[in-house]
Amino acid sequence: MINLGIVGYGNLGRGLEIALQHNPDYNLVAIFTRRDPADIRTQTGAPVVSLNEVESYRGCIDVMVLCGGSASDLPEQGPMLAQWFNTVDSFDNHSHIPEYFAKVDLAAKNSGNLSLISVGWDPGLFSLTRVLFNSALPSGTDFTFWGKGVSQGHSDAIRRIPGVVDARQYTMPIDTALKIARSGEPVKLTAREKHWRDCYVVTAPGADQDEIRRQIVTMPDYFEPYETKVTFISAEELAANHSGLPHGGFVIRNGETSPGKRQVMELKLTLDSNPEFTASVLAACVRAVARMKERGRTGAITIFDLAIGDLSPLSPETLRHDML
Amino acid sequence: MINLGIVGYGNLGRGLEIALQHNPDYNLVAIFTRRDPADIRTQTGAPVVSLNEVESYRGCIDVMVLCGGSASDLPEQGPMLAQWFNTVDSFDNHSHIPEYFAKVDLAAKNSGNLSLISVGWDPGLFSLTRVLFNSALPSGTDFTFWGKGVSQGHSDAIRRIPGVVDARQYTMPIDTALKIARSGEPVKLTAREKHWRDCYVVTAPGADQDEIRRQIVTMPDYFEPYETKVTFISAEELAANHSGLPHGGFVIRNGETSPGKRQVMELKLTLDSNPEFTASVLAACVRAVARMKERGRTGAITIFDLAIGDLSPLSPETLRHDML
Repeated sequence: MINLGIVGYGNLGRGLEIALQHNPDYNLVAIFTRRDPADIRTQTGAPVVSLNEVESYRGCIDVMVLCGGSASDLPEQGPMLAQWFNTVDSFDNHSHIPEYFAKVDLAAKNSGNLSLISVGWDPGLFSLTRVLFNSALPSGTDFTFWGKGVSQGHSDAIRRIPGVVDARQYTMPIDTALKIARSGEPVKLTAREKHWRDCYVVTAPGADQDEIRRQIVTMPDYFEPYETKVTFISAEELAANHSGLPHGGFVIRNGETSPGKRQVMELKLTLDSNPEFTASVLAACVRAVARMKERGRTGAITIFDLAIGDLSPLSPETLRHDML
Repeated sequence: MINLGIVGYGNLGRGLEIALQHNPDYNLVAIFTRRDPADIRTQTGAPVVSLNEVESYRGCIDVMVLCGGSASDLPEQGPMLAQWFNTVDSFDNHSHIPEYFAKVDLAAKNSGNLSLISVGWDPGLFSLTRVLFNSALPSGTDFTFWGKGVSQGHSDAIRRIPGVVDARQYTMPIDTALKIARSGEPVKLTAREKHWRDCYVVTAPGADQDEIRRQIVTMPDYFEPYETKVTFISAEELAANHSGLPHGGFVIRNGETSPGKRQVMELKLTLDSNPEFTASVLAACVRAVARMKERGRTGAITIFDLAIGDLSPLSPETLRHDML
């Protein structure tokens, strides 16, 4: 049994609590929170403990899974908790990964712990796939598409417009672009050619919907570079049809091994629940961290450093017999 | 630079010689053959040496890539060459993998070498994907589809029928089965429901084509369990339209992380040249073997034991910065 703890009880932490149910070799010791533990009722009856007490759990937890956000939680919690525990996190602020890696690496190495950073599906499985595809096809072109999926950042950007009560934005891949990626044309596609944005917006009574639509479609970076569709709906319809957090995407690489011999590789994820799937990947990674630590590895690592067999509950013998 | 040798110069060995052109960190020392080296002209001018002399290359070759067949070449060459070299091979006789692994492991451990067995795309990338998908989605259903692709075994089976001059058999996935796999229905599909077989046959003058067709579609194991289509064509048409060795396939896993939350993962390969792509995967694996050996690993390993980052020519820092 691997004893683990969860830090943070938002969508991801809740998803992880569920994911652990599918992994009978795990024992959830406690969920740690910055909130008052008395205010939290967990889905499975797991104990909730104040994050202030986390250090006293040293020695009782094999791997701590950090489920906080990348903007402010993880930059502080990652290095702090790596002092005391082996950790797994989903730090996804791409441009800050090298800096975050260095800080966690220092803390983990100093204490003899092992910390796996930036896992989930992107960064995570998609990153792994890009490296695998590039290694198998060194001469070629990469494409990544996201969606259909809810972008929290884009939904939040719409919610900040005066007169908007609530909103949900779906990032949508464009089919013709997917066809080009698969066809093997060595074409570079622009942002507008790869994705469009589908927005469902609830407005306050009397709000100027034309003006809100204008503010959305002209918003720099978020919407202006894309074809954007805005549909105004009622709060009831939003709750009924847009309450899930689906996501997914495609990693495609095509290239030639010799002139005229085209090879196309594609990974596709179609996810009803982004946080539950991300949590499910984190759960598998816990096993790899526990095993690598047992073999003496310390410091910070990424998904590129993992042997895939270490993610599986099956023994190497069984993997070779049943899965190879 | 990694110094490597190729053993065997059939389709796979030739594909590997081409694949190495895409990997500037490799130096091909020699191609070893059981034939008379004077009879072989290589595509890139690489030197050809008799396999009888291979032992004298100990110390000059970092990794030897075994490109022989799984039926008779590799069972003998794998353990023999693992005594003298680090090796990579594509042993694909699924039911004999545990036995082959044990023999190669013994030879490699005794000599302090490292041997990676059974890489390519299936076994290889497909196996890796099955373990990755099963680990990320522990509760779910697996599907593997092959094709559109030439099956050498099925083509050979047709060629053995009296009156047949030449033949090409394509294994074809059935679209409705692919849809079921992606839809998330926890359905078990039969062989006939997943694939059909498309055969192009050249017959001798005066041959009884109806009888040949009957013998094909009723052939046990090979064709009887499948919907099979037989088309008789001329030798010229076979040469013009069916001389390639395309292949590919799909690994799909779907499962629920919680009731009603369905997650679908899919890997798809569409390959113009099966041997060139297989060789391209072997080429990437050479790098991992060289690195793992340098870190002290010995014995036999499989693709489940590799860290994906070790396949890439990029440094860990660059991978984290550019690919995560």
